[in-house]
Amino acid sequence: MSSDVPAATFGACPLPFPAGDRILIGHGSGGLLTARLVEELLVPAFRNPALERLDDAAVLAVDGGARIALTTDSYVVTPIFFPGGDIGELAVNGTVNDLAVSGARPIALSLAFILEEGLPMEDLRRVVESARAAAARVGVPIVTGDTKVVGRGSGDQIFVNTSGVGIVPAGVELSSTRVRPGDAILLSGEIGEHGVAILACREGLELEGDLSSDTAPLHELAAALLAAAPGAHAMRDPTRGGLASVLVEIATRRRVGIDIDERAIPVSEVVRGACELLGLDPMLVANEGKLCAFVPEAEAEAALAAMRAHPLGRHAARIGRVTEARAAEVVLRTSVGGHRIVDLPFAEPLPRIC
Amino acid sequence: MSSDVPAATFGACPLPFPAGDRILIGHGSGGLLTARLVEELLVPAFRNPALERLDDAAVLAVDGGARIALTTDSYVVTPIFFPGGDIGELAVNGTVNDLAVSGARPIALSLAFILEEGLPMEDLRRVVESARAAAARVGVPIVTGDTKVVGRGSGDQIFVNTSGVGIVPAGVELSSTRVRPGDAILLSGEIGEHGVAILACREGLELEGDLSSDTAPLHELAAALLAAAPGAHAMRDPTRGGLASVLVEIATRRRVGIDIDERAIPVSEVVRGACELLGLDPMLVANEGKLCAFVPEAEAEAALAAMRAHPLGRHAARIGRVTEARAAEVVLRTSVGGHRIVDLPFAEPLPRIC
Repeated sequence: MSSDVPAATFGACPLPFPAGDRILIGHGSGGLLTARLVEELLVPAFRNPALERLDDAAVLAVDGGARIALTTDSYVVTPIFFPGGDIGELAVNGTVNDLAVSGARPIALSLAFILEEGLPMEDLRRVVESARAAAARVGVPIVTGDTKVVGRGSGDQIFVNTSGVGIVPAGVELSSTRVRPGDAILLSGEIGEHGVAILACREGLELEGDLSSDTAPLHELAAALLAAAPGAHAMRDPTRGGLASVLVEIATRRRVGIDIDERAIPVSEVVRGACELLGLDPMLVANEGKLCAFVPEAEAEAALAAMRAHPLGRHAARIGRVTEARAAEVVLRTSVGGHRIVDLPFAEPLPRIC
Repeated sequence: MSSDVPAATFGACPLPFPAGDRILIGHGSGGLLTARLVEELLVPAFRNPALERLDDAAVLAVDGGARIALTTDSYVVTPIFFPGGDIGELAVNGTVNDLAVSGARPIALSLAFILEEGLPMEDLRRVVESARAAAARVGVPIVTGDTKVVGRGSGDQIFVNTSGVGIVPAGVELSSTRVRPGDAILLSGEIGEHGVAILACREGLELEGDLSSDTAPLHELAAALLAAAPGAHAMRDPTRGGLASVLVEIATRRRVGIDIDERAIPVSEVVRGACELLGLDPMLVANEGKLCAFVPEAEAEAALAAMRAHPLGRHAARIGRVTEARAAEVVLRTSVGGHRIVDLPFAEPLPRIC
């Protein structure tokens, strides 16, 4: 960025900001560079109330009193086929999840491909088939689409954009702007599976245990949670940037403290082992089928029970709470009895993870 | 495509089908290869009523009786800055236009970037600023977005996806399924400007006269036409594949004949000259700010007058009519008194035009 850009308004940046004047891989990381790009360039340019909430989907009132949610994501994951899924399934589930955590019932998706010349038609067929199957599982139609082709070396096999529209039921008001001190923080299951599966696959690592992406649609789990805890304040699905990104973003943007008990965060043995081997922090590793909820204490136990009753929430846990103290900080109480401040990574531990 | 794919169901394919089993540049052309990919792979996979209409936007009923339109397009135009616009303005106008020709009032857009590592930040700023300005002109907010970054050589500067949601007013029913024999075919202005401007810019051609993209938002023109001709059957904005693609798609899919008077099609001198020089047919060249309408004869003159009263429709013309005879064919009555059948090009005269 040029030198007349204002100093970081997002999180702490302990280093001089070396982005220079070009886009870096880290600008797509879900870390600090992404946050700065969003908050210093994109939000100021397009400023409007729906956008400024920076939730996973924008909620809009339409004629007749209904509210719709709109969300978009492009998928550039490499490889396009990985243990537990592929880019087609990921694109459908990811956009369904952005609607689900906004409290919306998905009603329609769009699907847009940017294909690289020379892509085997069979690969496209497989991706289309798994997008179809994923949409059918959720019961959401893909109603419109687009296909572009770029020359060899101007793309990379398949990029997918899915946008989604959902209906927000009357009375549902989920937004990170509603997170309050005293909220319990619930997490639906074990973190880091998607990121570690992609990395292992990409690097040809042989890891002990069964390792695959957790890509899954969260619409039923979100609906079950909302039925049990209608006063829930916010939900997020931690993807690139991991659980840490969700927590730091909410703490920073909403000026609340977040207090997390590290021992309470579910992490499978295989992911823990892989992260130790690779030098990764599971809290920074991407998920594609996990839900993090901010729920008033009075409804926390009901919400947790509802999550645990669903197959995608059977490892659900209460991992911490929102505090008044230490506003804008995420404090992790570590398993050895100390504590540390969780920061966003400056840039990308794992590029092109989704 | 593999040999067990059924024979072409779309248009005539005079050649053995050489697509093989890989994606070709032509699959993104808006020509016959694109149509086959859509009709043989994508529509069968995702089959549902909204998709099968194959209009520029899908129309969905939501709670409360409102109808919304959803559309998506990815933009991969090269160069990203060109005479008359850039990829940011194009992405906003193009998606606004897909809503407008569906009779919808745009209410929200999404904006998703896939950036190539190393992109000058200043280029991104320029594109963001022109997307902002284009959205402000239309008065439609950009409410949600996404940014991904891919490594050098895995993308090409900037790809943009815009999806859009609009409200379809009560009583408006625009769809190519409603096109009927007897409909007048109206065109809002001179064709081929976008494609020729991109090509001239890309090839460094010096052409006589002022040549720039016609990128423009058509929402006001479409609304004016609908106010004057509330019984209009369908509207399209001819983009890649040109006017010919729109006409051939409607004739083929709706099993109607289309009779066009070549002399009535507005083409500027500079585009005509450039097309002669380059060996292009202006009917196959992309537009980004033209509207083609199918209107019952009784409302045709009122519709034409309304178009001509708008700055973007001042060269509007009646170019032909829908017939019962010669179902599924587009017949062009040429300026020398003969006639010829208009076919889709097999593949791409101009790749990455939008």
